[in-house]
Amino acid sequence: MGQVSRNESELHAFLAPDSIAIIGASADPTKRGYKAMVGLIKGHYTGRVYPINPKVDEILGVKAYSSLGEVPGSVDLAVICTPAATIPGILTECAKIGVKGAVILAAGFRETGAQGAALEEEVLRAARAGGVRIIGPNTSGMFNLHKHVNLLDLRDTKAGDIGFISQSGNMLLALVLEAQYNDYVGFSTYVGPGNQTDIGFDDYLRYLGEDEHTRVAALYVEGFSDGQKFLQAARDITPVKPVVVYKSGATEMGKKAASSHTGALAGSYEMTVDLLRQVGVTVVRQSDQILPVAEGLALMRQSAGKRVAVISDGGGQATIASDRLSDAGLSLAELSEHTRQRLSEILFDQASLVNPVDVAGTSDADPEVLARCLEIVSQDENVDALFLVGMFGGYHTRFAESLLGAEMRAAQAMVDLAGACHKPLVVYSLYAPIKPPPLRSMHEAGLPVYASIEQGVKVLQALAERGLYLQDQDGQPVEDAVRPDDAVKAMFEQTRQDNRDLFEYEAKSVLRTHGVGVAPEVVVRSSEQLESVARQFGNQPLAMKIVSKDILHKSDAGGVRLNLTGMADLLEAYEDIMARCRAYSPDADLHGVLVTPMVRKGTEVIVGMVRDPIFGPVLMFGLGGIFVEVLEDVAFRAIPLSRTDARMMVSQIRGRKILDGVRGEPGVDREALVDLLLKVSSIVAAYPQIRELDLNPVIAYPDGYAVVDARIIVEPSGP
Amino acid sequence: MGQVSRNESELHAFLAPDSIAIIGASADPTKRGYKAMVGLIKGHYTGRVYPINPKVDEILGVKAYSSLGEVPGSVDLAVICTPAATIPGILTECAKIGVKGAVILAAGFRETGAQGAALEEEVLRAARAGGVRIIGPNTSGMFNLHKHVNLLDLRDTKAGDIGFISQSGNMLLALVLEAQYNDYVGFSTYVGPGNQTDIGFDDYLRYLGEDEHTRVAALYVEGFSDGQKFLQAARDITPVKPVVVYKSGATEMGKKAASSHTGALAGSYEMTVDLLRQVGVTVVRQSDQILPVAEGLALMRQSAGKRVAVISDGGGQATIASDRLSDAGLSLAELSEHTRQRLSEILFDQASLVNPVDVAGTSDADPEVLARCLEIVSQDENVDALFLVGMFGGYHTRFAESLLGAEMRAAQAMVDLAGACHKPLVVYSLYAPIKPPPLRSMHEAGLPVYASIEQGVKVLQALAERGLYLQDQDGQPVEDAVRPDDAVKAMFEQTRQDNRDLFEYEAKSVLRTHGVGVAPEVVVRSSEQLESVARQFGNQPLAMKIVSKDILHKSDAGGVRLNLTGMADLLEAYEDIMARCRAYSPDADLHGVLVTPMVRKGTEVIVGMVRDPIFGPVLMFGLGGIFVEVLEDVAFRAIPLSRTDARMMVSQIRGRKILDGVRGEPGVDREALVDLLLKVSSIVAAYPQIRELDLNPVIAYPDGYAVVDARIIVEPSGP
Repeated sequence: MGQVSRNESELHAFLAPDSIAIIGASADPTKRGYKAMVGLIKGHYTGRVYPINPKVDEILGVKAYSSLGEVPGSVDLAVICTPAATIPGILTECAKIGVKGAVILAAGFRETGAQGAALEEEVLRAARAGGVRIIGPNTSGMFNLHKHVNLLDLRDTKAGDIGFISQSGNMLLALVLEAQYNDYVGFSTYVGPGNQTDIGFDDYLRYLGEDEHTRVAALYVEGFSDGQKFLQAARDITPVKPVVVYKSGATEMGKKAASSHTGALAGSYEMTVDLLRQVGVTVVRQSDQILPVAEGLALMRQSAGKRVAVISDGGGQATIASDRLSDAGLSLAELSEHTRQRLSEILFDQASLVNPVDVAGTSDADPEVLARCLEIVSQDENVDALFLVGMFGGYHTRFAESLLGAEMRAAQAMVDLAGACHKPLVVYSLYAPIKPPPLRSMHEAGLPVYASIEQGVKVLQALAERGLYLQDQDGQPVEDAVRPDDAVKAMFEQTRQDNRDLFEYEAKSVLRTHGVGVAPEVVVRSSEQLESVARQFGNQPLAMKIVSKDILHKSDAGGVRLNLTGMADLLEAYEDIMARCRAYSPDADLHGVLVTPMVRKGTEVIVGMVRDPIFGPVLMFGLGGIFVEVLEDVAFRAIPLSRTDARMMVSQIRGRKILDGVRGEPGVDREALVDLLLKVSSIVAAYPQIRELDLNPVIAYPDGYAVVDARIIVEPSGP
Repeated sequence: MGQVSRNESELHAFLAPDSIAIIGASADPTKRGYKAMVGLIKGHYTGRVYPINPKVDEILGVKAYSSLGEVPGSVDLAVICTPAATIPGILTECAKIGVKGAVILAAGFRETGAQGAALEEEVLRAARAGGVRIIGPNTSGMFNLHKHVNLLDLRDTKAGDIGFISQSGNMLLALVLEAQYNDYVGFSTYVGPGNQTDIGFDDYLRYLGEDEHTRVAALYVEGFSDGQKFLQAARDITPVKPVVVYKSGATEMGKKAASSHTGALAGSYEMTVDLLRQVGVTVVRQSDQILPVAEGLALMRQSAGKRVAVISDGGGQATIASDRLSDAGLSLAELSEHTRQRLSEILFDQASLVNPVDVAGTSDADPEVLARCLEIVSQDENVDALFLVGMFGGYHTRFAESLLGAEMRAAQAMVDLAGACHKPLVVYSLYAPIKPPPLRSMHEAGLPVYASIEQGVKVLQALAERGLYLQDQDGQPVEDAVRPDDAVKAMFEQTRQDNRDLFEYEAKSVLRTHGVGVAPEVVVRSSEQLESVARQFGNQPLAMKIVSKDILHKSDAGGVRLNLTGMADLLEAYEDIMARCRAYSPDADLHGVLVTPMVRKGTEVIVGMVRDPIFGPVLMFGLGGIFVEVLEDVAFRAIPLSRTDARMMVSQIRGRKILDGVRGEPGVDREALVDLLLKVSSIVAAYPQIRELDLNPVIAYPDGYAVVDARIIVEPSGP
């Protein structure tokens, strides 16, 4: 951990500034122009500070200037505390003296309506014209505690490892107070991105990724300005540094008319979670987990897997830990015979040597035995992570003062073990709320102690998921597997000109061109043609469907006949379909009838793609029918996918057991579905013309799959 | 709230004892016999204390006795600190002097194997013979802080409102330390039930229900000794006092061969949760929620509904609160026009007046505006509960010291509002971790302040669910609706003697006897009979199934033919079924062929009953097929059910949308299903002979339902 690259982000110039001008600096303690001044002074900022205020000579003992133009030196960062309307003019002045970045505190922009939005446009133009980057507007501000830049004047906030970007100022305040109580955790840089007019979450994330004082980037996000850029930034940063995101659940896309199941389900909170996890982000779902998880990821190494060994001094809490580990998708490590033998040598007879290990009173008079147990299980190759659960740190309070020495030695032994062994050690103590000396010493040595089993488990989960992400050999996006085909491009162009979707058979031909398994089918336009086609298909039962751009609901029009055998039946069905469809819609352009063998029984799945307005092209996978429609049991990934992504899509759905076969039916060929997902991902990546794609249903078999219905919508013509 | 009955529990005599003997009292600080002594003395116990120890004259200044027989007065409670093997003898001595109850600390009983179990039996016999009730054995002990009985010597533990029964001593210690940090919460009585040899959770719950010092009963449960008695105790107590349960997830029943879907799913953690909620228990799923939820229920009145008004001073936290409320099944109240008008008069223009209300800076210089907002929304009849979210209590820290006075006034106003209005007010403050004076004053006045949004929402959820439970008009179990029928009883007796399950047609006749909607059907035994039956059914398509106790898998035997029309086909099918079944199983006793009309298409559901070894007869409802088999999407209730129980079963399943109709299909008649569930509940209650019952499938229609297949297993003959 702690592997960091040199600062290369452009943002470094003003997020770690050597000189700061406070425009609208004030001596009135209720003003933000005062708070910024006092925060810099009391925070012992060592750079130059230039208060700008034409009405005074000095503020808090610092010489004031009547305008930016009078400032004698260069200015890295301007903190603008004046009202919205003044901002464009001030930015032009900033540009004149080469200010690199400006924090714009004022609200009254896009968030207030059209007039504000126009002003925000003006602000952005002024900034771009002058080469000034802007934080905000409508930002809660920023700090860089290692550089002693504390514009928010948050006292008692320790400099530390966690970089935090938050669209809520209250959320920052909440974490700062939580850290203050906790008193071991600290922050590096905080930024409120405000309206993200110039700089978005992706830029800030890259900055934190490069910042040498930041070990973990944590983000509170209400909405991304550019989700695709954020995913790319996260892809780049997460291999080097953990990224923790709490996303509030407001829908990304708002309401929209959905033209497919994929469209209806895209833009959901769960989709965002899927995409963030795809790029290695740790997503937390409770706001009170942000800080504990960020701290755990900052201080501990990731685990190599999900197998946790629990050492506890009470059966009840061992049980709770087991329940919660299971909820979190982790497992109880199966301890080796050798490990159990070694444990039995130091524990009372009544101890449980099967994980969760319950020392059953052995530690009451000898708390150091817990450290020895941890060391023993840490050496078991079946164990990926260690979890100490119980009253450690409070034995000297609970049993006898004289145990304090032993507890302090055990604490040191655990710190040493955490440093030496390559497995994380997570400690929960029920004494954490009162911070007794052994726990204090552990935390001060960089081994955090959690105050609830649930928090400890969340940290173990984050460490395991990060470990698996970093180890993943199949995590690279599969790209360039599909080269655009000229005939397909021509077909897209044609349908675009015709202002229609692709016909089902056209969509299938696109898929077939690129090696997707589609049931054979032929469009026939006459009885003669049907006879010849039917002979080719031999004796298998056939299905027939009308092909017409004017008939959307084929069944309603009488345009579908199934399970046909024998030439006479086929010919009758053909004439019947044509006659009914002509009657149903006399003006319809009847393109022909699609003839295809009836599909074998199998498991229905659905594969879809839409271009999400925030995150770009996303692929959806789910079981068909009610699983999608009622249970919304689907998985999303951003395109392009890696093989791991495709595998996880197939395995994360709640109904996954159905893919393994139920009611005596055989399971499906999961790798074939994985190949299909990767292929569709590649097709979508190769053809930016495709706006929406739906393979519904795909029938999955023990030996492959068949696409039964396919729909492709191309982007409409440009203006 | 606070409505309590007088102490009537037999347990009161020794859980609130006036005299205590400590058998095995010790001056060695590492012994439990010392801890008990020191806990009583330092806890200022005012009753009489009799240390029993033949080797010393006094312990901690209290005269010691060499045996119980020498004690000069009566003894309410004996605390036995001696080893397991001594217990039966000591209990006999206890009985001699009229000891009412004994706390048995020693382990080494049932939990250690057969020998220990035999000793435990002996202990129980001695206790019963002498009329001594026993807590434990293998208990962590007990305390009654209002009576100053603190056998655990837990210092700094405040007397308060929460009674706690916990199978984990560490869990008690964890709550005590959490309360100590929190410093407003206190406990009344604690008991560790240990092996529950004599006294179980149900007895302790009844004691807490009657204890005047207990406002909320909280329980940490690993397993119930008698689940049915516990459910009954909870039914009795929850109307008077809130009961909070954290159930650890170990399976109640362990592994067993399941003979039906109901059997396979019964005994699960989720079943236990369903049953506990049925009787009004508040179930918490995280161990770190036990104390906050118990405290909230102790101090606040329940809400009349689920509509919450959120007042916040920051958009981000308002969004988080909205997300979590929605997760918890609560809703954002729609504020009336009048309320919004009144809010607009006191808030800045940029404030959001649509719930969640964001005061948008109005409170920065005037924190009292928050109290005024709360008062306004409290008067809105669309609002059931109030939730304050943000930095209240820290304005004087964040903005200006001079605001402290205003914050103290606002705190008092909120306390007054909480006392005066009949809606709960839940306060989250990000300043809670550092306990500034306004928050301290609120908490001391009985208005708790929570340190995370998630905790606040859990409390709101508990208050709303409790409110709905208490208001429920249809919450009384529907009983005695079915009178046992002699013919049915005779049939049960016959099948019991034959040592077989009921035939499908017999099971259906039981249902039909009691008014359950079953498709018409007739068993035929000859071609002639078939002809006459077929004529009665008219032209509708029929199904035929073999009836034989020797053929379990009817389809495999060729014993099922569907969709038959026309006399010729029917006769052919009858001969075919008989021939194939004879071939399949030459020795089988062929009872006849069941003829029934094909069922109309509808929505498949399943209704099942098993007798759970812990909780007795339980009813299960779910959607059929994969919903039960793969998704385990089912609901359980203990029999007998109330109408509300039946309605909630139907509405709680994840796939409930299917019952409303999907893919253009009409919804089903939910009340008909509710009636079916109540009817089955009554049938099971009327016939203790029924061991298992499965209606699978039942087809639900827009206008009723039809039971298509039914299975009833009767209890085997006694020895």
